[in-house]
Amino acid sequence: MAPVESSQESAHDNNDHLVKSDDSQHPANLIPELCRKFWTLGWVTGTGGGTSIRDNDLVYLAPSGVQKELMKPEDIYVLELSKQTDPKKRVYLRSPPTLKPSQCTPLFIAAFTKRNAGCCIHTHSQWAVLVTLLLESRPLNTNVFEINNIEQIKGFGKGYQKLGNLGYHDTLRIPVIENTPHEEDLTESLEEAMDKYPDTYAVLVRRHGVYVWGETVHKAKTQCESLDYLFQLAIEMKKLGIPWLSDIP
Amino acid sequence: MAPVESSQESAHDNNDHLVKSDDSQHPANLIPELCRKFWTLGWVTGTGGGTSIRDNDLVYLAPSGVQKELMKPEDIYVLELSKQTDPKKRVYLRSPPTLKPSQCTPLFIAAFTKRNAGCCIHTHSQWAVLVTLLLESRPLNTNVFEINNIEQIKGFGKGYQKLGNLGYHDTLRIPVIENTPHEEDLTESLEEAMDKYPDTYAVLVRRHGVYVWGETVHKAKTQCESLDYLFQLAIEMKKLGIPWLSDIP
Amino acid sequence: MAPVESSQESAHDNNDHLVKSDDSQHPANLIPELCRKFWTLGWVTGTGGGTSIRDNDLVYLAPSGVQKELMKPEDIYVLELSKQTDPKKRVYLRSPPTLKPSQCTPLFIAAFTKRNAGCCIHTHSQWAVLVTLLLESRPLNTNVFEINNIEQIKGFGKGYQKLGNLGYHDTLRIPVIENTPHEEDLTESLEEAMDKYPDTYAVLVRRHGVYVWGETVHKAKTQCESLDYLFQLAIEMKKLGIPWLSDIP
Amino acid sequence: MAPVESSQESAHDNNDHLVKSDDSQHPANLIPELCRKFWTLGWVTGTGGGTSIRDNDLVYLAPSGVQKELMKPEDIYVLELSKQTDPKKRVYLRSPPTLKPSQCTPLFIAAFTKRNAGCCIHTHSQWAVLVTLLLESRPLNTNVFEINNIEQIKGFGKGYQKLGNLGYHDTLRIPVIENTPHEEDLTESLEEAMDKYPDTYAVLVRRHGVYVWGETVHKAKTQCESLDYLFQLAIEMKKLGIPWLSDIP
Repeated sequence: MAPVESSQESAHDNNDHLVKSDDSQHPANLIPELCRKFWTLGWVTGTGGGTSIRDNDLVYLAPSGVQKELMKPEDIYVLELSKQTDPKKRVYLRSPPTLKPSQCTPLFIAAFTKRNAGCCIHTHSQWAVLVTLLLESRPLNTNVFEINNIEQIKGFGKGYQKLGNLGYHDTLRIPVIENTPHEEDLTESLEEAMDKYPDTYAVLVRRHGVYVWGETVHKAKTQCESLDYLFQLAIEMKKLGIPWLSDIP
Repeated sequence: MAPVESSQESAHDNNDHLVKSDDSQHPANLIPELCRKFWTLGWVTGTGGGTSIRDNDLVYLAPSGVQKELMKPEDIYVLELSKQTDPKKRVYLRSPPTLKPSQCTPLFIAAFTKRNAGCCIHTHSQWAVLVTLLLESRPLNTNVFEINNIEQIKGFGKGYQKLGNLGYHDTLRIPVIENTPHEEDLTESLEEAMDKYPDTYAVLVRRHGVYVWGETVHKAKTQCESLDYLFQLAIEMKKLGIPWLSDIP
Repeated sequence: MAPVESSQESAHDNNDHLVKSDDSQHPANLIPELCRKFWTLGWVTGTGGGTSIRDNDLVYLAPSGVQKELMKPEDIYVLELSKQTDPKKRVYLRSPPTLKPSQCTPLFIAAFTKRNAGCCIHTHSQWAVLVTLLLESRPLNTNVFEINNIEQIKGFGKGYQKLGNLGYHDTLRIPVIENTPHEEDLTESLEEAMDKYPDTYAVLVRRHGVYVWGETVHKAKTQCESLDYLFQLAIEMKKLGIPWLSDIP
Repeated sequence: MAPVESSQESAHDNNDHLVKSDDSQHPANLIPELCRKFWTLGWVTGTGGGTSIRDNDLVYLAPSGVQKELMKPEDIYVLELSKQTDPKKRVYLRSPPTLKPSQCTPLFIAAFTKRNAGCCIHTHSQWAVLVTLLLESRPLNTNVFEINNIEQIKGFGKGYQKLGNLGYHDTLRIPVIENTPHEEDLTESLEEAMDKYPDTYAVLVRRHGVYVWGETVHKAKTQCESLDYLFQLAIEMKKLGIPWLSDIP
């Protein structure tokens, strides 16, 4: 019985060592720091949104329902990407005792699995929501946000397994998927959008927000910033009657 | 006479121990911290707005007329909820020597008494005021703000003594009451709105702001954030010609 | 000669003790702290704006041309109010060695002399400037900003040497004066506006900003916040087609 | 061979002493501090924008692709201005081991060489971009932003090698150049704009942002703030139907 008790003890200590590190760049320290920053940007208001970082096979996830500017390393979930064989039964290596896992988890996993991303950020940015609302205000819903000839577009990579960034004249295209009552049900259409737009680093969710990913935390975060900049700019352009697409030689 | 003197001494020391604690989660520490945050959000500009936390029978209240970002634990009022039998004669267990109690007090008490709330937040958010102004610009004043099919709606509980949160397709309804010259005179219409909308966690006050409550500090604060997000989004939707209610399957 | 040398030494040390204090509430400490806060609010961008505090006969002034968020106590000017008999020759008790006095000085002194103010704040807030621009866009310039039936109006005192604050239904009136090429030339029209509106705590300057004062630092600062709130609200109301004055029973 | 090895050692240590200083005003400390501030202002979102300081012949440059709010002194490039004789072959005195030099470098050098500037700031401010978009929405592109009769204009110097600042009635003119796919290709048209507008302290880049310089860090930074204030004001004026130029006696 001793081994069993020992194993139970191990279960009891819940692999807390996975979220304890003195390194400020450890995912369990980085996620709370990022979330504090995102809260000040209005991206994760009222516990909305989320963030996940992948370190090889280990995936670190912000929990559900926590005030993002108050998050602590011990609030972080950890799972092994290669062991998530049954999408209906998530297995966590480390779970915070009193919290619930984020409904965004399958969407983050899609970015890690299908795009080999190292970090995925989900925001409820109002600019993202407004862009999807403007694209809805037509006979048929438009399923892609397009903008070109804005310098900030150069903040985006050319796409999956491609080197370099988009150019100034390139058109940035971000697919829009329809929202669902349960966030995990977005997974299928998110994966479809990834298939249809293999080079995109982001997917807008109508009346909801945006998912942005990148090979590294640095790339996911800076692409998320650049995209939010473009969404906000697009809303102001709309108010001033300036089109999002232009033909500049 | 000795006991009387002792009692007077006790009155003289004003129960200051009630607002002294090393625990950052103690209400007398939490209220100033929340108010600092709310000030940066523009919710409590120019000493407007207020916050109250209930811990069992003890109610902790921000005072009137204090710069919210500079509030200190010793500025906090404390009263016993069960002892407030005469609404015209408020009895405080602890009063800061040089301050005045908040005019919001009877409204906070209504949330604690009628809704068993653990925290109530009052903001002068411009987005809240603008929403009430837009609802006024009609032949008859509209007495309810309604919005649906926005993901952030899921940040709200289903209602008093009900489990779970609103769904994406649910319509969030926040009643609007008319403002009065004296804030305490709002109490009756606030209570009427609570009766008419038993599941609401908030009441808008025309040309004034909003009261938001929750079972816990966490819920009141995150619902207040989600609501302010929705008010701001609603104003931007109005500017862009997008209706607040839609019919999405 | 010894006394003279001693006097010169005293001049050389420049009364620096007047701006050295361990008390966070000392004017020489408060002005930099306020200016840091005002910078984050966008009120004193690019060295614009200014702040002055009066402590009995001593007047403490932020200097000209300093980055407001980086101001230090040793940057503060000090003068004696009762000794400023010649408006063309300002005498300073303490001058920072390498800085220039603010052009706002005579306007601050007007608030101290004519209104017995304890603090005067000058901002270049864009909301203030936009309000004056909207009042200009008519056949004749309008020389007063008026708004009523907004709760935040209660953040203003009833007026000079009167007790209590404005009520919700009261109309807040802030006079607007025309800008001049040299800031000190505003003094005369500022004083005229003070005479015409004896109870106002603020004067707008067309295409420039606003001067706000109060009996204490607390009152000047919170009235300045409330006013900026109302200016911003007024601009948003204008965008949404809502009038600033209304007739509510 | 010993001297050579020593020289190689010196090359190996990469002149790191040039970016190590306990003085907060040292360029290698100032640039990261400025960039943190600019990030909060939305000027350098998503690694966009940049900053450079010149100290006599030494030029300190923020690198490419770094999160601006996280920049460290050891990320700074250093070069000698007088040794940049071949514009196609930049020689750095000190290079961070894993970073890339900024594409803005030739534009910063133009400000240092042609205008004797001590600091040059490049932002992607949305207000700057929107101003260039509004000036584009005409039959022919407008190549200058003009505004007058706004107090904040006095935040600008009169021009190259001139004393004093612009007056309230003066028209501030900022030339606009067309964007190019590669940032370094802007150099020629930036220099042309400097020739055509010899007194300007800034050049707008269409659909991209703005370059602002000054004799000192203080002047470049405060002029950049004043200009951004004017761009934001101009956008709000446009929304409210108020012209940027007016005829005020």
